[in-house]
Amino acid sequence: MPSPTRFQGPKGTRDFYPDEMALRRHIEAAWRSASVRSGFDEVDGPTFEHLGLYTVKSGPGIVSELFSFRRAGGEDDYALRPEFTPTLARMVAARAAALPVPVKWFAIPTFFRAERPQRGRLREFQQWNVDVLGLPGPEADTEVIATAALAMEALGLRSSDVRVKVSHRGAVTQALAALGVSGEQMPAALELLDKSARLDAAGFERLATEAGLPLESLRRFVEASRLSVPLVGAAAALAGRIGVPPGALAAMDELATHLADCGLSEWCEADLSIVRGLAYYTGTVFEIHEASGAERAIAGGGRYDRLVEMFGGPATPAVGLGMGDVVLGLVLQDRNLLPKDCSTLAPGPDVFILSAQGADSDRLAVQVAAQLRRAGKHVRRSYRATRNVGKLMSDASKARARSVLILGEEISAGRVNLKDLQSGTQESLPLADALARLSG
Amino acid sequence: MPSPTRFQGPKGTRDFYPDEMALRRHIEAAWRSASVRSGFDEVDGPTFEHLGLYTVKSGPGIVSELFSFRRAGGEDDYALRPEFTPTLARMVAARAAALPVPVKWFAIPTFFRAERPQRGRLREFQQWNVDVLGLPGPEADTEVIATAALAMEALGLRSSDVRVKVSHRGAVTQALAALGVSGEQMPAALELLDKSARLDAAGFERLATEAGLPLESLRRFVEASRLSVPLVGAAAALAGRIGVPPGALAAMDELATHLADCGLSEWCEADLSIVRGLAYYTGTVFEIHEASGAERAIAGGGRYDRLVEMFGGPATPAVGLGMGDVVLGLVLQDRNLLPKDCSTLAPGPDVFILSAQGADSDRLAVQVAAQLRRAGKHVRRSYRATRNVGKLMSDASKARARSVLILGEEISAGRVNLKDLQSGTQESLPLADALARLSG
Repeated sequence: MPSPTRFQGPKGTRDFYPDEMALRRHIEAAWRSASVRSGFDEVDGPTFEHLGLYTVKSGPGIVSELFSFRRAGGEDDYALRPEFTPTLARMVAARAAALPVPVKWFAIPTFFRAERPQRGRLREFQQWNVDVLGLPGPEADTEVIATAALAMEALGLRSSDVRVKVSHRGAVTQALAALGVSGEQMPAALELLDKSARLDAAGFERLATEAGLPLESLRRFVEASRLSVPLVGAAAALAGRIGVPPGALAAMDELATHLADCGLSEWCEADLSIVRGLAYYTGTVFEIHEASGAERAIAGGGRYDRLVEMFGGPATPAVGLGMGDVVLGLVLQDRNLLPKDCSTLAPGPDVFILSAQGADSDRLAVQVAAQLRRAGKHVRRSYRATRNVGKLMSDASKARARSVLILGEEISAGRVNLKDLQSGTQESLPLADALARLSG
Repeated sequence: MPSPTRFQGPKGTRDFYPDEMALRRHIEAAWRSASVRSGFDEVDGPTFEHLGLYTVKSGPGIVSELFSFRRAGGEDDYALRPEFTPTLARMVAARAAALPVPVKWFAIPTFFRAERPQRGRLREFQQWNVDVLGLPGPEADTEVIATAALAMEALGLRSSDVRVKVSHRGAVTQALAALGVSGEQMPAALELLDKSARLDAAGFERLATEAGLPLESLRRFVEASRLSVPLVGAAAALAGRIGVPPGALAAMDELATHLADCGLSEWCEADLSIVRGLAYYTGTVFEIHEASGAERAIAGGGRYDRLVEMFGGPATPAVGLGMGDVVLGLVLQDRNLLPKDCSTLAPGPDVFILSAQGADSDRLAVQVAAQLRRAGKHVRRSYRATRNVGKLMSDASKARARSVLILGEEISAGRVNLKDLQSGTQESLPLADALARLSG
């Protein structure tokens, strides 16, 4: 046998001990419940894909951000998936003709990014994906955002805890065009918008001037985009401030109406600086942030009407979101929405069996545990050698059991004690009666 | 934009469309329920680990069976995890002093093997792991097997559908020693036993002779191991046939008593040919097979008392099992335990909303759906342009909805129709009453 070796998990990955796993499942349960209630079907794909799937969508620059590999002797380059959308587009393209319209899918896969780990960003993480394909209108965009709100509500977050910042690429492009940005200059203008939060005045001016963009107009645009404007009425208010006809931002109005219909006005605000990547999104774009601006974005998404085509499928309108578990977990912590000990997020046992007599009660404990588990009950027991009922009762209480079945001296007479840990009442009764009651 | 490209998923991996995903979740739900009922806590680790984690346990030969990789510019060799036990041992070793005794953990991770895909064997698969650490006795071995039986029962498998074939490395070694196999010859004898099912008489003789093993005794041993012997009483029966003192197989007796106490006698049989790898297991070993011998093993496991030490932790008795989703899925299919359309394994909607009037009912449908979803209900609706109630009703029925909320002409008077798809009854009532009833 080799000498003992100490290993650590790879940098930026996580070991999920029971308390950490309970938190992960708590978040995933909220995601799943929101998805199912909203009528989404769950899907998944491979953990790694052909590398080309990612370079087709994002260009060769993406490779440095991926865990890519080739098997010894193999011919194919693979990459651990950094996101779900390429897999989704591939799956939809492969069966486009046979799928229902709309396709409403969700997934909760594990993803990988070869970036430097930092707060809110790991190399391996869980991310919830929600996508509607086949519907072109703001109704589908709204349904995706509404599903995100359902999940956040299930985790205890209220509309005052987070901001869903909404923009619309079509509206922004129209407004920029009305400000004199040409079609050729549009990508540079969007890029400038995207970077604006990280630029000082001089940097902003330099980039705008280099690209030949109308500096004053863009300054006005960015200033307006930074206002926290309620979504209903945002189009008119922002168009006035920016100095474009209100019609330029009409798409924002339409979306606002749908979000209001779904009771989401309080969750959302207009933020025209939300761009989210240049080549990919085609209409609505949004990001969800903690209300005070703490932490990175909790989620992001938008409309990507050209992606399925890029993967060989038919032209397919599509809108989706991604919400990772890392930032969300930090926000839940920041907002005091998690217990001190996350293991209490997992369900406690129905019954704790306490063997207080000796070898006979130990054997009976095993038999009774097997029987109750087969009857569907969550049963735990003490494996300790002690017969001290006080100590064992404290184990039961720590395990958060509802009832304690005490097997003591009286088992020779076929009797046991049953204690209800909520009411504190305890009674002596025949074993068969206790089992019948516990199995009920 | 690049020209459209068609991609396929990597060889040996799976795309999980909704019906396939529903089957995967069906299996995982049974695994999870059995684990929780039996008092196991869920854990997980990284999807990839340092390559050394696997070569320490299995030797350098394992590398060709792994998806291993090194990042461009990186210094660390990683491998996609082929199994959970090394991660488990690493996690236990890292926190040994702080963990409860026993540690009872389960995990349902994704694993990867770079083997040629074939029936029952893929390159990416889900596998359930159940482990008890810190208990040395047959009680823990039994608890692991009992948990497997609970999961199989939850999936509809009965004791007559599968065989839990049980052996004990200590007992087998003692019996072989009593037959004259020396300590030095023991690995060769175990290897021969392991291969015996795939060898003809000549091959068996050749290998036995080459290793200097007592041929006739080993033949008797293998013949005895192939009998389907009920576990209770197996030690005496098999010792007699093999020609060793019954005491040599005493460990089998002890295990049989514990399995009988848990009501598992009908699931189990003795099979001394079960070896399961040479260096790893130390006591009980078992495999679960479809009763007629169809398909590969459904599950396998056993006691591995030296592994945590190998990873730098304290000496820790341990026993566990692994059950993959691929063979299990085939067995469920073979035994007609799956519906034709596995998407029906996912829960159907509580309410299907049918918009039969026009733009007004469409808008109301969106509002009502949002409201009912917030009240916790699973709500679907038709997105079709048709107003034909018959066609839309058939959508509701296909979706397996319990109730249909019909928004027709009467919505102008604040009334709707509510149809119960189980009883077929339909009634007209005020919208508010319908929503109150559906939210209940």
